[in-house]
This record gives sequence, structure tokens and C-alpha cells, in this order.
Amino acid sequence: MLIGGIEAGGTKFVCAVGDESGNIFDKVTFPTEDPAKTLDAAKQFFNKHDIQALGVGSFGPVDLNKKSKTFGSILNTPKLKWKQFHLLDQLKQDYNIPVTLDTDVNAAALGEYKYGAARKAASVLYITVGTGIGAGFVKDGQTYIGKSHPEMGHIFIQQRKDDNFEGNCPYHGTCLEGLASGPAIEKRFGKKGDLLTADHVAWDMVADYLAQAIINYLLIISPEKVIIGGGVMKQEQLYPLIRKKVRDLSNTYMQLENLDKMIVAPKLNDEQGIKGAIALALLG
Amino acid sequence: MLIGGIEAGGTKFVCAVGDESGNIFDKVTFPTEDPAKTLDAAKQFFNKHDIQALGVGSFGPVDLNKKSKTFGSILNTPKLKWKQFHLLDQLKQDYNIPVTLDTDVNAAALGEYKYGAARKAASVLYITVGTGIGAGFVKDGQTYIGKSHPEMGHIFIQQRKDDNFEGNCPYHGTCLEGLASGPAIEKRFGKKGDLLTADHVAWDMVADYLAQAIINYLLIISPEKVIIGGGVMKQEQLYPLIRKKVRDLSNTYMQLENLDKMIVAPKLNDEQGIKGAIALALLG
Ligand SMILES: Nc1ncnc2c1ncn2[C@@H]1O[C@H](COP(=O)(O)OP(=O)(O)O)[C@@H](O)[C@H]1O
Ligand SMILES: Nc1ncnc2c1ncn2[C@@H]1O[C@H](COP(=O)(O)OP(=O)(O)O)[C@@H](O)[C@H]1O
Ligand SMILES: [Zn+2]
Ligand SMILES: [Zn+2]
Repeated sequence: MLIGGIEAGGTKFVCAVGDESGNIFDKVTFPTEDPAKTLDAAKQFFNKHDIQALGVGSFGPVDLNKKSKTFGSILNTPKLKWKQFHLLDQLKQDYNIPVTLDTDVNAAALGEYKYGAARKAASVLYITVGTGIGAGFVKDGQTYIGKSHPEMGHIFIQQRKDDNFEGNCPYHGTCLEGLASGPAIEKRFGKKGDLLTADHVAWDMVADYLAQAIINYLLIISPEKVIIGGGVMKQEQLYPLIRKKVRDLSNTYMQLENLDKMIVAPKLNDEQGIKGAIALALLG
Repeated sequence: MLIGGIEAGGTKFVCAVGDESGNIFDKVTFPTEDPAKTLDAAKQFFNKHDIQALGVGSFGPVDLNKKSKTFGSILNTPKLKWKQFHLLDQLKQDYNIPVTLDTDVNAAALGEYKYGAARKAASVLYITVGTGIGAGFVKDGQTYIGKSHPEMGHIFIQQRKDDNFEGNCPYHGTCLEGLASGPAIEKRFGKKGDLLTADHVAWDMVADYLAQAIINYLLIISPEKVIIGGGVMKQEQLYPLIRKKVRDLSNTYMQLENLDKMIVAPKLNDEQGIKGAIALALLG
């Protein structure tokens, strides 16, 4: 069975055709423009293939509350042409096959769960640290959605005493995203992250905030595996730093086994989102 | 069908016999002593009734990971005689009927979900603010358990700038429990909470910390309803204060509807734990 997947990002769309084993047979990437133009480009790609189902991991916020009247539409986004756009309905109309919609981060979590770094885990939290901070969660084969989908990047944590940055989240100032996202690092230190040396104090701070967040996630949803990806994590020295801080801050309270195996990088080389999108279609 | 329930607390045990509609026909309370003596008192009570199944909401930490060798036993507790005690096995042996074990807070959440303040909700988070802070979560009729059960009371949040209390959590100092539990309030202000006036600054602080925690829970698991109980919440002025701070701190980021209906007190008059324990047996 051929399955279609869309990784609907804020800057680019990835469309692919694959199967239930995580193989990808064809793939295309194009910039995200207005809905009509973007979905038209998708249609041109998928028309070349006989797909039986479609899975979509979308930028958000997206209404995933099945009881809601606007279920399946994009909510309050700064991309005004997409605001209130009914993505799910439009795709169902375009293709007339079953369509499964979820968040981009849930798709990435599912991709790594089925084919990547979390293949043997009962549950996985996938965190992305980039322009924003977000996380997706998969447990027992299902993506997690509550009343609305989680927005784990905006949680409150303790700001370090040696850090008096006012934060750059327009809503919360110093929430996690306001302290540790790529743009927060840039604003705090006056340089893009990739221009800071590997031993810059920025990374100790970022590791601190991410470690606190991971502890909060562990205490609240208790995932078996934690995967951290996104542009900021290209600073690979962050992984051992984060693991050490998780251990130190949690201070024997939690039974933490081998953190080298528990907190890891993605394995799918930037294909976790699109492979996960295809896998979404199989959840049904 | 007659069902047994045990609310196994650190200071007292409640045993009851009831049915699937939340009725309770007989109930007994006795202090928690060593395992043998305590479970013997339970047996004396249940021997008078013909129960078909037993549900238990237990103090913790308790091993609820089905893959674990010690599944069903009490873990690292300061009550040394209970440490590593295999509660589930012992109860199965004592009664020879199906036994369902969960945390005390998950039982309370389930009680309110089935019979109390969350009867019409798809999911509910039950927070208790007392000697410690803990929370249970029920979604779509099931209690939530991850790799291990959540310990949501120990999350990190932002300490207020006007609060330089070092916190009283032995593990984390100023985690939520270290800042806002009954003993933390007592240590911070030199008096037990019930001796502080209703307009004491303590309550504004406690409301602040609980509001931040609730926002974190909303962002991470997105429950439909939030119930707050426990000794500290006898300060009823906390409810409107917490609601206001949740709204202010979340600052339009989340779509929050009627907080008077969303963040509420328990409805079952201290029977949420035992009614929930009985309801646990029906999940089985
Ligand atoms: N090598 C690097 N070191 C530190 N930060 C980086 C690096 N590469 C990219 N970033 C930061 O990551 C962010 C982009 O994240 P990315 O995950 O690539 O995109 P997005 O989150 O928009 O999908 C930018 O803020 C950028 O400055
Ligand atoms: N009226 C009150 N106002 C403020 N705090 C109170 C009040 N009553 C009890 N407490 C505090 O609540 C805590 C006990 O919580 P409770 O939920 O009754 O027990 P536990 O958490 O041990 O099961 C104590 O720290 C006590 O000081
Ligand atoms: Zn924020
Ligand atoms: Zn703590």
C-alpha cells in the first residue's frame, strides 16, 4: 500500500510517498506560500502516485479537539493567510482518501518511535529546539493529544541567578522558549548560536533550562525515551551537558538509569517528520 | 456486584465496600502501621463482605511499570517497614480476586471523574496540596501512568523575586512542593497555614506557584478540568486567586474559557480517594 505524507512546516512543505515499513519512494520540498498555491503544489506531486491514505504533521497551533467545530483547522498563527484555514477538510476534498492530521512534533515523535532512536521504547518525547521550542509525545503507539495539543515549549522554569535576560517570548517573557530557543540565544548574546564557540557560557545556560524542562516532562508524563533535535542541538556538546544537569538537578529523586541511552539525538537525519507523517496515516 | 476499595495513605487506611455506581455500603478507617498489622485489619473488614474485585489507591512511590520485576511494590519510602513491600502480590494472596493498584492521586482523580466535579469532562487533573503536592490524571476513562507514575509536585517553576526562601524539598529545594506545600508555608512564615489570616501575603505567593504549575500541566498534558484539593486548599480564597493568576500569567497564549468551571474544588467531600479506589477495580 502506498501512503502519502506531508510535513507542513511554516517555511517549507515536504511531501513524500512511502510505505508502512518507513521506506520513502519519492519526495519533494517547496516553500510554504498561501494555502491555495501550497496545496496545489502538493496535489501536483501526489497526482503522480496512487496513494491510499495521507498523514500530515502540521505547524500550529492546529485544532485537534475532535469535539470542536473547527477541528482540523489552523488556529491563531502569525501567517495570516493560514489563520483559520481548514486544512483537514481541504485535504480530504483534494484527495478523497482517509487523512490523519497531527502536529509536526507529534509526527516527528512517531517517526523516531517507529523507525528511529525510540524503536524499542514504550513511549517517547521528541523535543525540538530551534526557532521555537516544541515537543511531541507518543505512548503505546498513539500520539498524545489532550483537550488541545500540548505546547510544552512555553512552560515556566527557574531562571538562573546569573541570567537577568528579560526573555523573548511575547507572551511569557522568560518561559523556556523565551530563554532557550535560537532567537532567545541570539538576543541574549548578540550573536546567532552558530557563531558562539562551543565553550561559550550560553550553552551551559541553555543546557540548564533544557534540563529543568526535561525533568518537568519526566515528572509529569514520564516518557521512557527523550529525543532532542532542532537547529540549536547542532551544538552537540549540549547532549552530555544536559544529561549531567538532569542527573544533578533531579538529585536522586527519580530513578534515572543510563542517561546516555535515555536522552539522545534523533536518528532519522531530518526525515523523522516526513516518515512520521506517513506513519500517522497508519494510526487511522 | 460488590467491590472493595482501599485508600492506602501514609497515616491512615480507609477500606470500603461499594458498587459500580459510586455507592458505599460499609467503610472503616484505621491508622497505617506495619504492613502485616495494617493488612490484617483490612482483612478483618473485608471478610465480612463478599467482594468480587478490589481496587487500591496507594501512597508511594509505588512501582507501576508492568515490565518491572518489582511491579506492584512500594519503592523508596521513608516508612521503612513498607519499603520494597510487595503490596499487590500480598493483596492478591489475601483475597484471591482481581486486584487493581494505582496511586492515591490517580484514585482521587478517577473518583472525581466518575462521580464528582469532572463527571462530564474527557480528562481531569487532580492536584492535592497538603503535606506534599501530588497530582493524578485521568483521560478517556483511564488513569495515566508513564514509565513510572508521575510525581508532578516536584516540578521546577519560577520563584518570585520577593521570595528568597530556600525551599524545603530535601531533593530540589525550591521545586513546587518545596515552595507551596503546607510544611513549606509553615517553614517560610513561621506558622502553620491555618493560623495565617486569609489576606496574608503567603496566599498570594502560593497562588502564584500553583498557577504556574497549572499552566505547565495545561501546556504539557492539556486536561479539560483541573481539581485542586488537600489541606492547604481549605484557604478557599486561593481558588479565585489561582484562576486570576492562571489567566494573567498565560497572557492570551492559551485559549482559556470559563476558569470558574475549569479550575475547581473536589466535590466528593473527602470520599474521592475511596470512591476512586473502588472505581479502579472496574478498570481492570
Ligand atoms: N549550529 C548551530 N548552533 C546553534 N544554533 C543554531 C545552529 N544552527 C541553527 N541554529 C539556530 O536554530 C534555529 C533554527 O532552528 P531549526 O530547527 O533549524 O528551524 P525551525 O525551528 O525554524 O524549524 C535558529 O534560531 C538558528 O540560529
Ligand atoms: N485551614 C488550613 N489552611 C492552611 N493550611 C492548612 C489548613 N488545614 C491544613 N493545612 C495544611 O495542610 C497540610 C495537611 O494536608 P492534608 O491534605 O490534610 O494531609 P496530607 O497531605 O498529609 O494527606 C498541613 O501542612 C497543614 O498545615
Ligand atoms: Zn512563552
Ligand atoms: Zn522537590
